[in-house]
Amino acid sequence: MQALVLEKAGQLSLRDIDIKETLGPHDVRIAIRTVGVCGSDMEYYRHGGIGQFVVRAPMVLGHEASGVITEVGSEVKHLKVGDRVCMEPGIPDPNSKAARLGMYNLDPAVRFWATPPDHGILRTSVVHPADFTFKLPDNVSLAEGALIEPLAIGMHAAKKAEIKPGDLAVVTGAGTIGMVTALAALAGGCSRVVITDVQQPKLELAATFGPITPVNVTRQNLVEVVHGLTDGWGADIVFEASGNAKAAASVFEPLCPGGRVVFIGIPPEPVAYNVLAAQVKEARVEHIFRYAHVYPRALALIGSGKLDVKPMITNTFAFKDSIKAFEFAVNMPPTSVKVQIELAA
Amino acid sequence: MQALVLEKAGQLSLRDIDIKETLGPHDVRIAIRTVGVCGSDMEYYRHGGIGQFVVRAPMVLGHEASGVITEVGSEVKHLKVGDRVCMEPGIPDPNSKAARLGMYNLDPAVRFWATPPDHGILRTSVVHPADFTFKLPDNVSLAEGALIEPLAIGMHAAKKAEIKPGDLAVVTGAGTIGMVTALAALAGGCSRVVITDVQQPKLELAATFGPITPVNVTRQNLVEVVHGLTDGWGADIVFEASGNAKAAASVFEPLCPGGRVVFIGIPPEPVAYNVLAAQVKEARVEHIFRYAHVYPRALALIGSGKLDVKPMITNTFAFKDSIKAFEFAVNMPPTSVKVQIELAA
Amino acid sequence: MQALVLEKAGQLSLRDIDIKETLGPHDVRIAIRTVGVCGSDMEYYRHGGIGQFVVRAPMVLGHEASGVITEVGSEVKHLKVGDRVCMEPGIPDPNSKAARLGMYNLDPAVRFWATPPDHGILRTSVVHPADFTFKLPDNVSLAEGALIEPLAIGMHAAKKAEIKPGDLAVVTGAGTIGMVTALAALAGGCSRVVITDVQQPKLELAATFGPITPVNVTRQNLVEVVHGLTDGWGADIVFEASGNAKAAASVFEPLCPGGRVVFIGIPPEPVAYNVLAAQVKEARVEHIFRYAHVYPRALALIGSGKLDVKPMITNTFAFKDSIKAFEFAVNMPPTSVKVQIELAA
Amino acid sequence: MQALVLEKAGQLSLRDIDIKETLGPHDVRIAIRTVGVCGSDMEYYRHGGIGQFVVRAPMVLGHEASGVITEVGSEVKHLKVGDRVCMEPGIPDPNSKAARLGMYNLDPAVRFWATPPDHGILRTSVVHPADFTFKLPDNVSLAEGALIEPLAIGMHAAKKAEIKPGDLAVVTGAGTIGMVTALAALAGGCSRVVITDVQQPKLELAATFGPITPVNVTRQNLVEVVHGLTDGWGADIVFEASGNAKAAASVFEPLCPGGRVVFIGIPPEPVAYNVLAAQVKEARVEHIFRYAHVYPRALALIGSGKLDVKPMITNTFAFKDSIKAFEFAVNMPPTSVKVQIELAA
Repeated sequence: MQALVLEKAGQLSLRDIDIKETLGPHDVRIAIRTVGVCGSDMEYYRHGGIGQFVVRAPMVLGHEASGVITEVGSEVKHLKVGDRVCMEPGIPDPNSKAARLGMYNLDPAVRFWATPPDHGILRTSVVHPADFTFKLPDNVSLAEGALIEPLAIGMHAAKKAEIKPGDLAVVTGAGTIGMVTALAALAGGCSRVVITDVQQPKLELAATFGPITPVNVTRQNLVEVVHGLTDGWGADIVFEASGNAKAAASVFEPLCPGGRVVFIGIPPEPVAYNVLAAQVKEARVEHIFRYAHVYPRALALIGSGKLDVKPMITNTFAFKDSIKAFEFAVNMPPTSVKVQIELAA
Repeated sequence: MQALVLEKAGQLSLRDIDIKETLGPHDVRIAIRTVGVCGSDMEYYRHGGIGQFVVRAPMVLGHEASGVITEVGSEVKHLKVGDRVCMEPGIPDPNSKAARLGMYNLDPAVRFWATPPDHGILRTSVVHPADFTFKLPDNVSLAEGALIEPLAIGMHAAKKAEIKPGDLAVVTGAGTIGMVTALAALAGGCSRVVITDVQQPKLELAATFGPITPVNVTRQNLVEVVHGLTDGWGADIVFEASGNAKAAASVFEPLCPGGRVVFIGIPPEPVAYNVLAAQVKEARVEHIFRYAHVYPRALALIGSGKLDVKPMITNTFAFKDSIKAFEFAVNMPPTSVKVQIELAA
Repeated sequence: MQALVLEKAGQLSLRDIDIKETLGPHDVRIAIRTVGVCGSDMEYYRHGGIGQFVVRAPMVLGHEASGVITEVGSEVKHLKVGDRVCMEPGIPDPNSKAARLGMYNLDPAVRFWATPPDHGILRTSVVHPADFTFKLPDNVSLAEGALIEPLAIGMHAAKKAEIKPGDLAVVTGAGTIGMVTALAALAGGCSRVVITDVQQPKLELAATFGPITPVNVTRQNLVEVVHGLTDGWGADIVFEASGNAKAAASVFEPLCPGGRVVFIGIPPEPVAYNVLAAQVKEARVEHIFRYAHVYPRALALIGSGKLDVKPMITNTFAFKDSIKAFEFAVNMPPTSVKVQIELAA
Repeated sequence: MQALVLEKAGQLSLRDIDIKETLGPHDVRIAIRTVGVCGSDMEYYRHGGIGQFVVRAPMVLGHEASGVITEVGSEVKHLKVGDRVCMEPGIPDPNSKAARLGMYNLDPAVRFWATPPDHGILRTSVVHPADFTFKLPDNVSLAEGALIEPLAIGMHAAKKAEIKPGDLAVVTGAGTIGMVTALAALAGGCSRVVITDVQQPKLELAATFGPITPVNVTRQNLVEVVHGLTDGWGADIVFEASGNAKAAASVFEPLCPGGRVVFIGIPPEPVAYNVLAAQVKEARVEHIFRYAHVYPRALALIGSGKLDVKPMITNTFAFKDSIKAFEFAVNMPPTSVKVQIELAA
């Protein structure tokens, strides 16, 4: 089948590749339709690896995907040929201790699309477990379906935050992850999100997505803004979505007593963590790793109209132009958020 | 001052009454502007009592109120003369054990407006503790402010339910409390609410408030509707807001495994509770009594545009027509939801 | 192999039975050593069924078991031949939605020993999934191992109760389940348990197990005792372990504001549930169905000496006397708690 | 009255001091009987201050105290003259927002004994709010009563950890706070505590307090020990009680997936916090500041025999030898834990 293959760092080919996948009784076969380009795809493209994960053989990229079912395994009951679906890119062992406890994302043996040595899905079809394949509501497009994967990160963070209705949240970082986190926090019960960044166009775009107050930290004081909105009390929740060391070290400053922090971004080095600052507020700090059990929740919120990711899809390329899509994404303007690639029906 | 006084069961007067209130250092004095008519006001009007609470002397009715501050105590810092506010009608003892634990609504010594022997606030002014008086955001009207009290019940239920983003909830009963619960559940993170009632006009009105699926239990099967929406899994949450014995006895039927139930309505008799039905799903059942700590949350959600109570205000009367308002409310058509009384500025 | 077979209601045989079990890669084969007699075994023996579960063919009884591993599957890593173990009697489908969410006990497809049509383990050997087989610490006997199954119910209840260190709990009912619940509650953080029953010998025995206050409800007032111990505040937790309709209907009386109730016993009919009594205290009510993820926790507490079930083992019979054991159990004196049957090594 | 006064850094006097205290209606007057010497007392003694808190005028030391009531205010109902009691040293404003939410320890306006400019209680008597004065059970001595204050820190940490029955916990640091945390964790539901330190005598003493496994980090590998005890899974909870920068930076290493960390110790500088290490386990990190609502819980556990602090009281001095007590505490041998001072009856 045709696929976008990373031959080695910096070198992409759109070419035939020989991938044979057998359909098990609990699997479905899916014709891929839309694939989003993710920051991790860019990292593999530019540097050939992320941390311990190094591309040692040609690897198909892509893990944010939607498609249409073309074949179902003998034991699959909730899906049928023709269903429009999106898919979780990670496949855990259901018998691992973490999976049995309900935390399948923490199973170290998870296989994940486009993470060496596993191929991604910028290709015409894939076989996938039905349990990790989710039917799209009728009013949700395939393009939206391919955005569920990054949205799932924001959803998982919002779930971990144990939002109480009406909470005010800060999201540090207005990149894709910051934006999906802001949307998930609002759909998940927050009354308002204060979002920070250093790029004004991103902030202005984010501010159009709902009751979102943008703060440009190069010229505004986050704590002052939050105190102004909360009568001096502080934010109920701080989502750290930038991965920036300085932002990560400052999470307790805008927080209210008894508030919660969720670390979503991954700073490259340990951060300077002020234990006493967290103690005087008895902060609860959560950390997320990918997501678990949130795809149906994300689809329910999009399907009911409570969460709209469409404005985030700023650039779409045809499959034949996949390499152009990656070249565009390397030098993406700040007004662009999500680049997607469409495969023909 | 002039007040709407319940002289005894069935007899109302709009007349002068002598109420002298001293302003303490932590109090504010408020000119009342809007007061909602509540079911409990109607009960006192019609029957002269509710359970153990019997009207033995003339009592001013009304506890859903907004107004404008006319005087502030010496120690009050967060409010000033001219502020538009709404007020919690219950005043607990801050030194009670329940209050110290953060559950001031469970303090048996709470004094509550329009609950014998305490007067309500269908009168021109009141002195109230500043800690239980909340400034309205600029874009929230005094009429909306007077709806915060019933909304607070739905908000408290939504908080207790520990909604996870994207949950599907059932609300049994489409009266005022069912409606505010549906609105609070949606603003608080639910993707969809299924609301039940036996009166079609109420259901049709509720269905215009958001992603709300009406179920007329006289001709539809609630469990089938919920299973259709959830692929046979069940509702994450059931809010019992009808106080109806049969509805209360059936809460576990549409529930999913591991789901939560919140009892809001007060059935007049013990209900037939199926322990085994709750056990096979390991249901968690919460119960609420009034509310605590939710007024600021309700105001934040209305202020940010995430929750709109305006369509619930269906009938407004002038203070001079207060008795007419009560007569109207006694025989309210099913298309009416909330009756309010406006006092002149 | 030899087995204790329930031929039909009231008729037991100790005889050979032909059970062939294949060892899968994730299974172990276990020589059974100790089996406890449970109330459900007695029900099948006396009445031939429990609710929807009817014995329609000869069935081996017994589900509280320990033994020694005689063979391990090719993929089993944490167990080896010769290990002394105890086993969970229920085997869920790891791919069911409930199991994936971490609630495998709520999977309706669970197969359970000695629940028609599945055989129990009063027989010489069994093949069982390694994931549901637990190695006993060196200082835990096979007799104690066979008590983990009923203890698991108390442990699961204690986990659901979200005990805070120092809580005072009430346990209604001093039968086997009441006793294991009391022990689990104390090991799980309670400072004291008040246990109720109508049989004085059971209460006196329970009172020797730790800081347990017995209350004979035929002549003492539970609420008065609890208020005396808590300065009038009430019990933090009430565990309903009797299945008695009257006890189940009274759970909110001794409870403190903000307290928790756990329904463990299964009343045969719906109980008269006082919603308002639960509301004025904002009670949280939990329900348990069997248990999940608690065997390792029970073994850890017994192994470290924090929980001692040995005094509960009051009567032991040899396998050859199994029928006598059941006859004894039918008319068990109130000073007996747990009857066990030992199979030769 | 006579008092131990810190005149300035390094200079103590046992002398008369003029402190006049009026008894309010909600207060009690207490004759002080036993006072523990705390690390913070030592800091003030040696350095004249702790961070922002600087001793600028003579200040009475001591905040771990028990005594006997000599006078009660007119509104006090639950205490009477002659009652043996212990006291919380911090007095919050019950009307602060934090206090109303149930987190009175986070009220920035709290006044705290022996924290400049407020006097401590190494003196013959004190007036204190009855709500923060707790009657000792009959079987709890005044010496034990004076240990409730440090124990409360461990209790608060154990409460925040949301221990599930049978959890295994690590406590880093075997000083007084580490020891009370280990005791509270065991009484609060843990099956075993692994405690670390660099001083062998402290570890050996701690190991006599219950199922506590000592790890001397100068020659043992904590992660290996924990993995050995948990079949490679990790500890459910890590309590950081050392305040040591290296220990604080390593909290995620022995932790299990989904585990919890509680920061109790206060490292003098920000620590190197490995966000990714916390993320791959989705750790929940809690922080405590003093304590709230735990004195009654600590007394209940000591009173019922589930928690024994007596072995921690290693050195007792008479009030007249208070200065000697402080001199001893400055150079305390590792076999000493808690120094107490007794005032005559």
